[in-house]
Amino acid sequence: MTTADIVILGGSAAGITAAITARRHHPDKRIGLVRKEKQVMIPCGIPYIYGTLGSPQKNLIPDSILETNRIDLHIAEVTKIDRKERRLGTSEGDVKYERLILATGSLPTKPPIPGVDLDGVFAILKDVEHLRMLQQRLQKASDVVIIGGGFIGIEFADEINKIGGKDVTVLELAPNCLSLSYDPDFCTEMENLLTSRGITVRTSATVERIAGDGRVSAVALADGSSVPADMVILGIGARANVELARQADLRLGPTGGIAVDRTMQTSDPAIFACGDCAEKISFFGGRPSPLKLASIAQLEARIAGANVFGLRRESDGTLGIWSTAVGELAMGTAGLTESMAKDRGYQVVCGTVETPNRHPGAMPGAAPVKVKLVFELHSQVLIGGQVRGNTSVGEMINTIAACVQKRMTAEDIAMFQMGTHPALTASPIVYPLVNAAELALSQARQ
Amino acid sequence: MTTADIVILGGSAAGITAAITARRHHPDKRIGLVRKEKQVMIPCGIPYIYGTLGSPQKNLIPDSILETNRIDLHIAEVTKIDRKERRLGTSEGDVKYERLILATGSLPTKPPIPGVDLDGVFAILKDVEHLRMLQQRLQKASDVVIIGGGFIGIEFADEINKIGGKDVTVLELAPNCLSLSYDPDFCTEMENLLTSRGITVRTSATVERIAGDGRVSAVALADGSSVPADMVILGIGARANVELARQADLRLGPTGGIAVDRTMQTSDPAIFACGDCAEKISFFGGRPSPLKLASIAQLEARIAGANVFGLRRESDGTLGIWSTAVGELAMGTAGLTESMAKDRGYQVVCGTVETPNRHPGAMPGAAPVKVKLVFELHSQVLIGGQVRGNTSVGEMINTIAACVQKRMTAEDIAMFQMGTHPALTASPIVYPLVNAAELALSQARQ
Repeated sequence: MTTADIVILGGSAAGITAAITARRHHPDKRIGLVRKEKQVMIPCGIPYIYGTLGSPQKNLIPDSILETNRIDLHIAEVTKIDRKERRLGTSEGDVKYERLILATGSLPTKPPIPGVDLDGVFAILKDVEHLRMLQQRLQKASDVVIIGGGFIGIEFADEINKIGGKDVTVLELAPNCLSLSYDPDFCTEMENLLTSRGITVRTSATVERIAGDGRVSAVALADGSSVPADMVILGIGARANVELARQADLRLGPTGGIAVDRTMQTSDPAIFACGDCAEKISFFGGRPSPLKLASIAQLEARIAGANVFGLRRESDGTLGIWSTAVGELAMGTAGLTESMAKDRGYQVVCGTVETPNRHPGAMPGAAPVKVKLVFELHSQVLIGGQVRGNTSVGEMINTIAACVQKRMTAEDIAMFQMGTHPALTASPIVYPLVNAAELALSQARQ
Repeated sequence: MTTADIVILGGSAAGITAAITARRHHPDKRIGLVRKEKQVMIPCGIPYIYGTLGSPQKNLIPDSILETNRIDLHIAEVTKIDRKERRLGTSEGDVKYERLILATGSLPTKPPIPGVDLDGVFAILKDVEHLRMLQQRLQKASDVVIIGGGFIGIEFADEINKIGGKDVTVLELAPNCLSLSYDPDFCTEMENLLTSRGITVRTSATVERIAGDGRVSAVALADGSSVPADMVILGIGARANVELARQADLRLGPTGGIAVDRTMQTSDPAIFACGDCAEKISFFGGRPSPLKLASIAQLEARIAGANVFGLRRESDGTLGIWSTAVGELAMGTAGLTESMAKDRGYQVVCGTVETPNRHPGAMPGAAPVKVKLVFELHSQVLIGGQVRGNTSVGEMINTIAACVQKRMTAEDIAMFQMGTHPALTASPIVYPLVNAAELALSQARQ
């Protein structure tokens, strides 16, 4: 039997971060990490296996990060959490813990569509073998349909399209792809880009069934049309993987995740949970939130890892920050969009600017960058932002995220000193974050 | 005679921004801008004229931004400020004002070195004709010496080196180039890069005199050595252009700028000043600050433009945020370096991390990114940061800048939700801002 002071169950991004954080906060404790996978996929890198990287082996999280942090790795399938004995039953023997951190992640949602079990229909599992099979199957496919136009769907579509020789179609139920994270003008730009790259994008498309005789042959839509398919990829979301927690009678939350308080403590004070498996509340209003993102998992893991032997940190709730890239176009989002904010009952004032991301515009690499900031009208507190531009968008969205998290106002942002450089950013005169805040202030005064 | 409610004197970045801000805050006022230049240079773009852009004409700020904002442009040389009559005397007749904003900028410092007036020695004036002359002279030069290894010096060195066929030498008085803005390890990296690109970098180099007979032929150093030169460029800083303010008996400050309070009001309540011409205090401790940067000028212009008819905004002082780029290497800095902080009497704790800026590292465009955060030890408030990496550094430094400005702590930053993406940023597990904060916290606990 193995024993450790802190045991982390799950070896993906949340589990690894919880382990590293526990090591930093508890330098003298024995820390173990149990996972079933021999090799761990970088979750966000999975779409890029198919076009850019070329193989699942190029998308691994190296175990060296565990060794460096003196985390004992146990590769084993956990079959049971014995809370009374503080012991995990595993395929390789028992593991005793003083404190347990659950980071069991999520599983892809399988929609209740007829035909979803046909040969050739793939969900996205974070598993090397499964992803390799998907790759082999792709080599022979000529009509690929992706159900779901969220970020996983569009990233898969573009990467598969890069392989060449295939008709790739994205089917999205909502009127726009990415509509849970971007306002319509941003979504439309991404749809147009995908279309210009040869991908068929169908929005407001309700899938009625997946057709085929043993093997998938088409996807039938509610409007009576049908899209030929010799392969279907499901990109419609994920649900918390809570099977072991449920068996151990840990309390579950309203969206189906493991119930935790703001310290990431579960209903058992010796057990914490973080990442996709944990129930979440929104930063805005505090209601249950179904979001599952790396940015959230990371925060929760840093809270759980710090708190195991005395509470040190609390979560303010999930913001929803992420970015995506297709070709030269990158888009980032943080917090609420204008549409989402209005739907939730906020009155908002927005500032939107578009400007070259270099100055002068004749500098190499110049491309337009667009920033939209969403403020609550009366307090003028920033509640969301969206950016569209080139690779630097991946970092711009984090400036916005920091402002949302610290509840900065339009005036705070208008008063920023911001660094600029001809080869790296927009002109100081029109620096887009500051300028968008100034525009929102002008509008609020009117 | 021309009359306006608000007159801005100076048409570069600070003047334009003050005018736009005044328009936003005072939609119904008549606003005029007086400048002597027919065409306005983008100040930070000047080095890039010589290698990347190819001509001063490609580095202009378009006047359309004034038209869009209903600013009346007067091209005239101002000879006098008549404060009693609230009137500017100009080469094209008088301009009457209700409120005046001075944005007269700075002039290059001419060092008291013998030979500084020889033919072939150039200061950097923000003037199209002067910069064109400098370009013509460069075409015939083969030995170019740049005195001063600050950002203007190294940017000029690299751009001139791109022309080809020249020996380019940078002479820096201090032990490192960029040492006023970066800690030594960052400086050394930039020096090594410049050297690898064929530029000679000499640090701890005291210039004794510029030699030549009418025309420059060499630069003589205090150690007895001599560097051949048929052209010398002075990149050693700038002083506030306060001649008109001095003649008008406006109070000047301890570093020679126009004295202003935190609202940018001068000793005359009808006159405001902003940008390089205005005296500044540091964000850290509030002492007089000699910094002159676009990031500071912009903030001051947004304060002055808002405040002319009733005080709306106050400055917290100058932070010092800027970035630079040479080839694929970009560096950004905000606030105090570790060395500067210690020199000023702070006890500090730092966190430094280096990680690939893509995940997995096999993603295209992957390069190492290094982040150093400097915290005050006892409060754990962020007082500075430095980043080295690729173009995204230009935006990363602004996340750090926002954190410094809002006096965030290491714990605030360790608790950030930050967006990440394989093609755009580092891995969430090691996202460098958060990770550097966590490391600083670990060290502070020890």
